[in-house]
Amino acid sequence: MTFDAIFVPAELRAAVSDRAWVVGMLDAERALANAGALAGVVPAHLAGSIAEACRIELFDVAAIVEDGRSSGNPAEPLVRALRAAVGGEAAMFVHFGATSQDIVDSAAMLVASRSLALIIGELDGVASACAQLAEEHRLTPMSARTLLQQAVPTTFGAKSAGWLVAIVTARNRLASIRETGLAAQLGGAAGTLAAFGSSGLDVAARYALELELPEPVVPWHTDRTRIAELGAALAVAAGVAAKIGLDVALLEQTEVAEISEPAGAGGSSAMPHKRNPVGSALAVACARQVQAAAGVLCAGLVQEHERAVGAWHAEWGALSIALAYAGGGAAAVRGSLEGLSVDAARMLSNLELTGGAVMSERLAGLIGRDETNQLLAQAASSGRTLREELAADPPAGLVAGALDPASYLGESGALVDRALAFYREER
Amino acid sequence: MTFDAIFVPAELRAAVSDRAWVVGMLDAERALANAGALAGVVPAHLAGSIAEACRIELFDVAAIVEDGRSSGNPAEPLVRALRAAVGGEAAMFVHFGATSQDIVDSAAMLVASRSLALIIGELDGVASACAQLAEEHRLTPMSARTLLQQAVPTTFGAKSAGWLVAIVTARNRLASIRETGLAAQLGGAAGTLAAFGSSGLDVAARYALELELPEPVVPWHTDRTRIAELGAALAVAAGVAAKIGLDVALLEQTEVAEISEPAGAGGSSAMPHKRNPVGSALAVACARQVQAAAGVLCAGLVQEHERAVGAWHAEWGALSIALAYAGGGAAAVRGSLEGLSVDAARMLSNLELTGGAVMSERLAGLIGRDETNQLLAQAASSGRTLREELAADPPAGLVAGALDPASYLGESGALVDRALAFYREER
Amino acid sequence: MTFDAIFVPAELRAAVSDRAWVVGMLDAERALANAGALAGVVPAHLAGSIAEACRIELFDVAAIVEDGRSSGNPAEPLVRALRAAVGGEAAMFVHFGATSQDIVDSAAMLVASRSLALIIGELDGVASACAQLAEEHRLTPMSARTLLQQAVPTTFGAKSAGWLVAIVTARNRLASIRETGLAAQLGGAAGTLAAFGSSGLDVAARYALELELPEPVVPWHTDRTRIAELGAALAVAAGVAAKIGLDVALLEQTEVAEISEPAGAGGSSAMPHKRNPVGSALAVACARQVQAAAGVLCAGLVQEHERAVGAWHAEWGALSIALAYAGGGAAAVRGSLEGLSVDAARMLSNLELTGGAVMSERLAGLIGRDETNQLLAQAASSGRTLREELAADPPAGLVAGALDPASYLGESGALVDRALAFYREER
Amino acid sequence: MTFDAIFVPAELRAAVSDRAWVVGMLDAERALANAGALAGVVPAHLAGSIAEACRIELFDVAAIVEDGRSSGNPAEPLVRALRAAVGGEAAMFVHFGATSQDIVDSAAMLVASRSLALIIGELDGVASACAQLAEEHRLTPMSARTLLQQAVPTTFGAKSAGWLVAIVTARNRLASIRETGLAAQLGGAAGTLAAFGSSGLDVAARYALELELPEPVVPWHTDRTRIAELGAALAVAAGVAAKIGLDVALLEQTEVAEISEPAGAGGSSAMPHKRNPVGSALAVACARQVQAAAGVLCAGLVQEHERAVGAWHAEWGALSIALAYAGGGAAAVRGSLEGLSVDAARMLSNLELTGGAVMSERLAGLIGRDETNQLLAQAASSGRTLREELAADPPAGLVAGALDPASYLGESGALVDRALAFYREER
Repeated sequence: MTFDAIFVPAELRAAVSDRAWVVGMLDAERALANAGALAGVVPAHLAGSIAEACRIELFDVAAIVEDGRSSGNPAEPLVRALRAAVGGEAAMFVHFGATSQDIVDSAAMLVASRSLALIIGELDGVASACAQLAEEHRLTPMSARTLLQQAVPTTFGAKSAGWLVAIVTARNRLASIRETGLAAQLGGAAGTLAAFGSSGLDVAARYALELELPEPVVPWHTDRTRIAELGAALAVAAGVAAKIGLDVALLEQTEVAEISEPAGAGGSSAMPHKRNPVGSALAVACARQVQAAAGVLCAGLVQEHERAVGAWHAEWGALSIALAYAGGGAAAVRGSLEGLSVDAARMLSNLELTGGAVMSERLAGLIGRDETNQLLAQAASSGRTLREELAADPPAGLVAGALDPASYLGESGALVDRALAFYREER
Repeated sequence: MTFDAIFVPAELRAAVSDRAWVVGMLDAERALANAGALAGVVPAHLAGSIAEACRIELFDVAAIVEDGRSSGNPAEPLVRALRAAVGGEAAMFVHFGATSQDIVDSAAMLVASRSLALIIGELDGVASACAQLAEEHRLTPMSARTLLQQAVPTTFGAKSAGWLVAIVTARNRLASIRETGLAAQLGGAAGTLAAFGSSGLDVAARYALELELPEPVVPWHTDRTRIAELGAALAVAAGVAAKIGLDVALLEQTEVAEISEPAGAGGSSAMPHKRNPVGSALAVACARQVQAAAGVLCAGLVQEHERAVGAWHAEWGALSIALAYAGGGAAAVRGSLEGLSVDAARMLSNLELTGGAVMSERLAGLIGRDETNQLLAQAASSGRTLREELAADPPAGLVAGALDPASYLGESGALVDRALAFYREER
Repeated sequence: MTFDAIFVPAELRAAVSDRAWVVGMLDAERALANAGALAGVVPAHLAGSIAEACRIELFDVAAIVEDGRSSGNPAEPLVRALRAAVGGEAAMFVHFGATSQDIVDSAAMLVASRSLALIIGELDGVASACAQLAEEHRLTPMSARTLLQQAVPTTFGAKSAGWLVAIVTARNRLASIRETGLAAQLGGAAGTLAAFGSSGLDVAARYALELELPEPVVPWHTDRTRIAELGAALAVAAGVAAKIGLDVALLEQTEVAEISEPAGAGGSSAMPHKRNPVGSALAVACARQVQAAAGVLCAGLVQEHERAVGAWHAEWGALSIALAYAGGGAAAVRGSLEGLSVDAARMLSNLELTGGAVMSERLAGLIGRDETNQLLAQAASSGRTLREELAADPPAGLVAGALDPASYLGESGALVDRALAFYREER
Repeated sequence: MTFDAIFVPAELRAAVSDRAWVVGMLDAERALANAGALAGVVPAHLAGSIAEACRIELFDVAAIVEDGRSSGNPAEPLVRALRAAVGGEAAMFVHFGATSQDIVDSAAMLVASRSLALIIGELDGVASACAQLAEEHRLTPMSARTLLQQAVPTTFGAKSAGWLVAIVTARNRLASIRETGLAAQLGGAAGTLAAFGSSGLDVAARYALELELPEPVVPWHTDRTRIAELGAALAVAAGVAAKIGLDVALLEQTEVAEISEPAGAGGSSAMPHKRNPVGSALAVACARQVQAAAGVLCAGLVQEHERAVGAWHAEWGALSIALAYAGGGAAAVRGSLEGLSVDAARMLSNLELTGGAVMSERLAGLIGRDETNQLLAQAASSGRTLREELAADPPAGLVAGALDPASYLGESGALVDRALAFYREER
């Protein structure tokens, strides 16, 4: 995708590249040969030759993919190239019993598994940064904002705790998919494993073992739930990262200025004074790409018979984008959070902007809702603040510090503790 | 949505109606009052009056929703109406400590839980029908089709087994979400539970108990992962239903005619002879609506601070559509499958259409890939079928019945057994 | 859709209701009878009876739609009901020569045309409000913000001019579609008009005239470009409305406070002091629904042969949502803009928040980019503002008022004039 | 995107590559320098040096993009590199008066314009192939199919005419956008052109001339309608191509076999006899990617103030995908159509599959709807065909050849003529 390098860390770009997919396909062909040998349907020495030839260095990835245009998939030319590479008798046993989709789908699972390791690492980094912020700012008062209006006080710790729980939830779903939701795919031409004679199930079981992927109940060429669910989980993770990124950008606004990016970040080509929330922008952009790709993957569920006319083919690019940009979004937010400066004093002074109105819920609890509304109306018409109104004519029930945000943090601290406990036990 | 009644069973339409949402909101207000009483922040007798007034019959749903346009949500007018309904001192304690989003989000969870019960019921019906087809047609040969071309033989049982595993997977994900993935929402104005004083966590725990919904780690007004995941799981379920529907419609094509709809289905306004695959059309249409709605829900993850400017509001309609149409799609496919006539003889005769070419993989296993390709080329140029070529000049290695589909079903039967075992243990 | 009444004005809700669709279908049946009579394929007096019976009052809309579940569309039961209503010999000529899709598609066009009139009215209102703001605040300085950071000065007029051009563009596209992009649909069972004998083209032409819809080049049952393009244009209009809404909400933030909603708007159920940007929230939510629906409509292009298995059926609900919520979004923003209070003094004081840094581009033009960067760095390290740095040690090239925003508005006024001219000539 | 080379022709891949975007950015910087010189705000000889340095060969594209991660866009590092390349006094005038977005947006327009030329070329090829098929098969009878059931006869020419009108419509929309819907972008830091002093509008006009792009009413950094509309138009074009591809694949089914792919196409890695509808699969897959990308572009309308936090950044990749895959889909379908073999005899024999039922609408016209239904019911219960029922007991009104498809082609020929005329006049 255009300007990938702006959005996706290099390691993750490599993990979803054409080369990485072809590596996965060669891993699948190797596993197939080895499984065939163990099951007795491929002579062991020929399997050895095949396995030996399944090295990416021996293949011209670009040429193979280009060649795939005529057959509509990259496995067919790869199999031809692999047959040529091993030559002789062994060539007959290359790809034996499999179909293109077996190889590409298994490669997709390997690409997913390897990419997920990186993505989960980035999400762990985000979680760790959130946990640290939650802990440090457990009781740092700031304004909560609903519909972008100051609402009541909360703490920056409580806000970070909300981020933390969401990111851990999203991370855990991906980890669970990585552990049990992926699966080897081997079904042969149409899912019956017929070419293996009576050894079909045996080969399929050994193939999964070779790939270190779970063995599915039945071949899943026709059942794309795991692809769709993976896409959805990536979209959720990217969405949570973007939510954090958006909050960060909003808190960094010139007029809010409660947090700021690491120095050196976000230079502008035209305006020397700016420090742009670049990590936020990248995270938001990444989430949009991931969600679009997840939509393609989900639509792919609806496919014709034993292999689709296009729905399958659309998965490859969409899966790579979903993986790469989910990781990219997490990495971007992680970078933002790890270098974040928090301005607790500004948080407190912003809480004063409404002249006490942000405390009106508390006041209503002390002096009654109707009285509070009346005072607010009075303030609005007089041009005074609620604080000034109260000072001018203190109502019954008023206590000292009634408008002090720190007195109205509710369960913020306890909620931070719960989020941290959740984070720690979930690791 | 236009013509809802064509796509969604009446019970499910009711379950996501404005009325059902307002019922859920009243349930939340009642739970709030009761929880407040138990925690000692609301006088018990006033809580009783409030709980008593939380009956849908007392409210004009249409008027309340209409009224919600000015505040941008339906909770604000409902709270006003509820205060008016209880009157007196109790009115002060209506909605005490909560915010609109607490009530609407909790209602969303109740609507989801109630709708999911219906949806899971429909999916169970689909699974049961698939299981029966898999069992009955365990070894009924038919052609597998990849890219809509006949590929190799499979069995209708194996095909049904693929449907079964997918639908059970999708159903189980929804059941798991229903059991542990929903949660009560109570955070007060911005998630700190501050209005409850030191009883915040106590009230929140009791509130969840009253609603029979899990208590979340922290209030989730700011963390929409559960909404997004629910949307995704519904889209997956609807997608699987549509995949089955699409296969059914393809098998029902005039030229394929391997299965047919229940008699009486699918009349046409212009063509008296037609029996349209109506269930398939509905299932495919439903999946598209659910996926679109799931996209809205997933995009809703990215929301501003403690309540979004719009992302939250977009959830209500999207969630209802996702629920209703996921159930609608399942119901449509269930109807198709339950009345399905299977024409095993036609399946067999269709397998003959290629004149034996559909058995070429098996033939290659017997006489070699190169020899097979040569025979196919010969056949193509001579205008004879593969079967005729073989009869004219039998190659070495040929065995009797080499082109008999029933001899090349691979592990079809065993895979059916695995799918059925998966289905039975998962229940 | 859930809580429709919060998002969509009543008139527009009515315009896309099941009833409105059935009215459109009856209009199509009437036009068909009349066209048939004019072309001589339906006896005139029988056509008269049919036309006479095409009155919505005679039909039970809910029952017809409910009944449509078995045939998968609402035309089949409507035709039956209409035949019953006219009775006798005329019944034979009801729906003569048409197919369900002809009637539903033509109704879709009528629903679209009627809804578009309302939507365009709302967009005109938005445009008018933008134009007024642009004119009034042609030279009212405010900060432009990129990536939510103050960038350089602009004027509120220039900002409004940007809104204006976008909304006029979106409105004009819809108006153009309404005038020439819709079309009558009549093709008969599969697009050949065969049932009309040699009068097919004649009937089709008269049918379009009766409906006051353009006649297409060929029947478009198989070509959904006009539906997809209409969906896209609605999504664009809704997106522009949401962009304005988002800007409004951002400007209304407690910490920015440059504009405010009409008094009385946006009450909160928990916080008496709040005035929420409700119009913005609704507009943003509407845009998300419209975009999702537009996606369904665009996906509908890919449909099987002469009528799709589901892709067609998915259009009905999606089209109604796209129409209703595009209008809803425009109406919401219009409401916001028409009651908007603009605080020019606050705009000016916000421009001072950076201590002059927002003028650094201008300063760089006066004293050089490197010097400016040096001053900014100095300021950052000393804790002084740029303004203070300049005062302490005025560099060469500095002029009086160098940091005055009003001196750096560029072409803001001229751009407002261009936008207003565009708006006026486009009407 | 993964395996791009399978889906997108090489020339088009190059047209949307990072390199192509950077070429566009250099074109924009050159145009800026030249426009500045013509307007007198940049010394002519320095502008000359800058223009001279705007050659892609001088820049390391990968390094520049990689470098863009810290600023969040590729313009900032390119400007730095360009300043270094020109050196000296000229460096001060590089990028003078512009902002990153001006350069990237203008590059996007150039990339779009250049890619559209290729895409329109492919669409012209599709249209030409459709026109030829329509002409050749103007009266070749085949079955129309609705909901995948044989409905009534049509002609392959009429079917192709439907494709033709849709593809010409989609093509014309793109051509119109290419001619008048793109626009140069120059606004400076936030759209006021302030850095150019009183020459802002002059520079902007000259800049557009230099780029050979229309000049917009006002800078459009804040108005993404043209991007969203371009995305939608690409999605429509890709959707139409996929619709054709899907029809082709359906007609190529083993059991239908009315058309076939060019020889040599669609080899399978496992099944030697298969000839897969590869072009169809690619076209369907491409449409899904384009639609997803178009969704990202449409969502990008809703962006914050004068530059978005992420919505803008998400456009780059999405626009490239939309362009590349729209072209890829058209190219794939064009390949399919240009090599298509049409089996008119098979079309005719397939029309016999229903034993005359496909002619029941015609029969109803001759002998009455009730009589026809009765005959169909009789046939169903007796196991005879409609043809046999008619022969056994000819009803009144029956004419010879009543069941002959060629007698019931309606306006097929005339509709082909209309489509061809539309195609020819639209060129």
